[in-house]
Amino acid sequence: MKYKVDTPSQRRIMLNTEMVVALSFEVKQRDLMGRIGRLKTRSGILETPAFLPVVNPISQIIPPKRMLEEFKCKAVITNSYIIKRHFGHLEDLDAHSLLEFQGVIATDSGAYQILEYGKIDTSPKEIVEFQKKIRSDIAVILDQPTGWETDYNTALWTVKKTLEHARESVPLMDDDTLWVGPIQGGEFTNLIRYSAHEMSRLPFPIHALGSPTPIMERYHFPRLVDMVMTAKLNITPDKPLHLFGAGHPMIFPLAVAMGCDMFDSAAYALFSKDDRYMTPTGTMKIDDLSYFPCSCPACRKREASELREMLKHEREKFLTEHNLYACMAEMDTVKQAVAEGDLWRLLESRSRAHPALASAFRKLAEYKNVIEENSPSYDGRGVYIFDFWSLSRPEVVRHTHKIESNYTPPKAANLLLLVPAPETKPYTSSHQFKSLLENIEEFSSRHWKIHICFYAPPFGIIPSELAETYPLSQFETAEPLDKETLEFTIMQIRKYIERNKYDAIFFHRGTEKLGILAEKSIKKCLKGRNTKFTVNSNLDPWKDEALENLAKRLNNLKIITYS
Amino acid sequence: MKYKVDTPSQRRIMLNTEMVVALSFEVKQRDLMGRIGRLKTRSGILETPAFLPVVNPISQIIPPKRMLEEFKCKAVITNSYIIKRHFGHLEDLDAHSLLEFQGVIATDSGAYQILEYGKIDTSPKEIVEFQKKIRSDIAVILDQPTGWETDYNTALWTVKKTLEHARESVPLMDDDTLWVGPIQGGEFTNLIRYSAHEMSRLPFPIHALGSPTPIMERYHFPRLVDMVMTAKLNITPDKPLHLFGAGHPMIFPLAVAMGCDMFDSAAYALFSKDDRYMTPTGTMKIDDLSYFPCSCPACRKREASELREMLKHEREKFLTEHNLYACMAEMDTVKQAVAEGDLWRLLESRSRAHPALASAFRKLAEYKNVIEENSPSYDGRGVYIFDFWSLSRPEVVRHTHKIESNYTPPKAANLLLLVPAPETKPYTSSHQFKSLLENIEEFSSRHWKIHICFYAPPFGIIPSELAETYPLSQFETAEPLDKETLEFTIMQIRKYIERNKYDAIFFHRGTEKLGILAEKSIKKCLKGRNTKFTVNSNLDPWKDEALENLAKRLNNLKIITYS
Repeated sequence: MKYKVDTPSQRRIMLNTEMVVALSFEVKQRDLMGRIGRLKTRSGILETPAFLPVVNPISQIIPPKRMLEEFKCKAVITNSYIIKRHFGHLEDLDAHSLLEFQGVIATDSGAYQILEYGKIDTSPKEIVEFQKKIRSDIAVILDQPTGWETDYNTALWTVKKTLEHARESVPLMDDDTLWVGPIQGGEFTNLIRYSAHEMSRLPFPIHALGSPTPIMERYHFPRLVDMVMTAKLNITPDKPLHLFGAGHPMIFPLAVAMGCDMFDSAAYALFSKDDRYMTPTGTMKIDDLSYFPCSCPACRKREASELREMLKHEREKFLTEHNLYACMAEMDTVKQAVAEGDLWRLLESRSRAHPALASAFRKLAEYKNVIEENSPSYDGRGVYIFDFWSLSRPEVVRHTHKIESNYTPPKAANLLLLVPAPETKPYTSSHQFKSLLENIEEFSSRHWKIHICFYAPPFGIIPSELAETYPLSQFETAEPLDKETLEFTIMQIRKYIERNKYDAIFFHRGTEKLGILAEKSIKKCLKGRNTKFTVNSNLDPWKDEALENLAKRLNNLKIITYS
Repeated sequence: MKYKVDTPSQRRIMLNTEMVVALSFEVKQRDLMGRIGRLKTRSGILETPAFLPVVNPISQIIPPKRMLEEFKCKAVITNSYIIKRHFGHLEDLDAHSLLEFQGVIATDSGAYQILEYGKIDTSPKEIVEFQKKIRSDIAVILDQPTGWETDYNTALWTVKKTLEHARESVPLMDDDTLWVGPIQGGEFTNLIRYSAHEMSRLPFPIHALGSPTPIMERYHFPRLVDMVMTAKLNITPDKPLHLFGAGHPMIFPLAVAMGCDMFDSAAYALFSKDDRYMTPTGTMKIDDLSYFPCSCPACRKREASELREMLKHEREKFLTEHNLYACMAEMDTVKQAVAEGDLWRLLESRSRAHPALASAFRKLAEYKNVIEENSPSYDGRGVYIFDFWSLSRPEVVRHTHKIESNYTPPKAANLLLLVPAPETKPYTSSHQFKSLLENIEEFSSRHWKIHICFYAPPFGIIPSELAETYPLSQFETAEPLDKETLEFTIMQIRKYIERNKYDAIFFHRGTEKLGILAEKSIKKCLKGRNTKFTVNSNLDPWKDEALENLAKRLNNLKIITYS
């Protein structure tokens, strides 16, 4: 397999079969592993990440036309197998006419029916041909879903069977349908890895990860993180990844952060049959609803108390509408976060929906290095540090790594003057820093070349010459510090002192916990080194007296050294 | 001052003037310091907490009638001073006719104009009489706002002046208007305390806290917490507390959690003039909006990209509508959280909007004891523990306090068998607990009376006889544990061991961090005590072998003791 990469929109994959697949996906913006993309389909551009509501081809509570016009659903998904069974005899059958929908139509292949009924009455080739016939914009080959609580050997068999179907389907695939190559393996990440790797070798413009639904239904979100990340890291990164059966808004921020681009589900409608109301933080039974925690058109028109008096079918319609609004709005919320570089903060907020989602977020943080590598730098957006959860943010990972691997203090600097964080950022533009400079400007000597650094959570050491760079110029930390952030900060300070050998360190500190603990830590790591270490402890280190005292002591330092 | 308390809806305050004020406020549901209440006004019941949009009596972007019908605004607030200046010459002037609004109308007195222009052209008596004349449902006496960055003496003067006006106004107050007694003091909490205390002695059915707007605009939320809590804790708790000028949805959860019942602001309209878009987590400039993170009818109808092409007045109308929807929906979200006992979780989530809000939430946690005293127990709702932030939840505070002060182990129990948390709750109904019992049922002796307890974060020790009580039967913890939650748990275990003197402790632990650290901590606190301490460490403490081994060792323990 050879890759030839041109400009993003023209990337092509050259296969050993000499077949050329035009890549129809262009990434416009990125945050964490998530991205906003443009997928070129026969029916127009589909912006991703996109949630595709499952539409029953036979009857719909919300007609697809209304979905497009009122709910801004640019794409829907329906089931080609059901269409084939009900309408397969018709000539000139066309998915868009059948659904009366002018947006993008994706079709699934009947795999869900295999999962439900064990087998179905079609073949891989037949269902590919049928999807071509009805002119689906996005079409899934017939895969063999791994399912839930499947033993290893059966799971392996489903992976192999799906690959076999895929290889059978490849020669039949046309150019203007976007064909989906599904990845199976259930909960076995080594099978997902194998499946993703093999499927990637075939010329599918889109991949999909199967069978997450039972895992999501059971709130096994940490496991989902390992599954999705395994799939994601083993497919070509510039292809869209669809997450089959994911349609609860509570999972969208996490799934997009992992790099999922497309989602489909009938949950918005199925939940409503069961009197369940979706929110971005979970599912509520209507009996527990006293007020609508939602601003959607359906909810703003009614009072929660009316729900229980509605006729069943009215209530189902209301809930279907609300649930679809909730899905679409949460996806827009996620997209806005990606566009702004605000996705990590959104995850911190949304992970307080349920401990299982919080555990999943912590699990995601284990992938912080790969996330950092993939996440762009958003100059200009403030980095919010709430507590230790924020320490895995790409900006923090990136900066601490940079300072550790790529930073050396200015040449000839031999005296480190360590001062607390001024009140405003960039620190070097603060009036406090300016009065520091005024006070010590007379201090200069052949012997001492001063290097001013700030100490501040969570970054630890902020060299003054970097204080105006991102993110050091733009971050905000919640107070008081939690223990882990405090320890992390001190560790950064210690590592800096260990790595960079100054002849003298002057620690002009405040009396806050961080300063006191940092002093201890610095002392420890200077043990056995002949670095001169001087500490000035001040109730307010920026007061005139404190700065004057600092200047005096610096001068004394000079004299002592001369002698 | 004497209180006579009848049934809630008939509570009356007897004053030394012998004046009787019918209390018109009834609390229906509570969570933290927040409550859902019913305020009886001349125009009907107003459910609280309620956000009252400020309506300009001269021109409105959204007519009040539409506010009621489309936005579910049951109450609005307008300015009696402006009405007086513009329409004061009219006979039969009536606020409801003037605004064409059939809901509840509150009127402010002109204090805002004092703040803006230094003085106004009316008197305390005149403006009270005018509000009676136009038949306001809720009316504010003429107060003297403290304002922002006011020195102490001026702040004190505003407090005294407001009290003086209040005393002047009391004799003029009629029975069917709800009169508001404003509390001033700015950022000086001792002045707020004095102001609240003195104002509480006067027969106002509603109180209000003044001047928080500049503090909110500057994101000084932690300071706001001290101000509101001081006011709240110094007024009669069964009166509604109005927070003047608070109209950003990002402040509603926190403010309601502190016991604020009413809010008013023109921000929803003012922000729109300035192209600012409100969300429950902050304010966005429209240039930064690529997608609408919102499901409101205004946002669902449009694309964010259209905004920049709209005419200024169209955009202002759109933003005003969106901002008002955002305010109303967030208030409903908060009310739903109160009704469910879910407000703490909502605060944890929403405090990830901005570090200043997170700092305010940590500040609120300093009031955890008074919050615990005021917060009811919601049997039946699962308690979510995300990390150390959750340790200040009323349920955790309450339980740890209970175990510390009011708990004694079953009589005659002299052997503590400490086991890890089974997989399902209540722990005593788990199959793991059952197999534990089966394994040790043969162990009984004259000497040892066993008491089984579980160790689990965050509660520490869960005595088996309490395992089916709330919240021990219903809580979920995110994993892995953060350092502070781990330490908190170990401290709870240590305290329990210190307080309760068993003759022997058998620690049947797993190999997880908590178990290992707990063992160390128990050993330390048993130093010098002649308690027999035995540890069984197991990779899986619930496996048959582990339980059989436990039983064997318990029997050995018996033999050793006999000898």
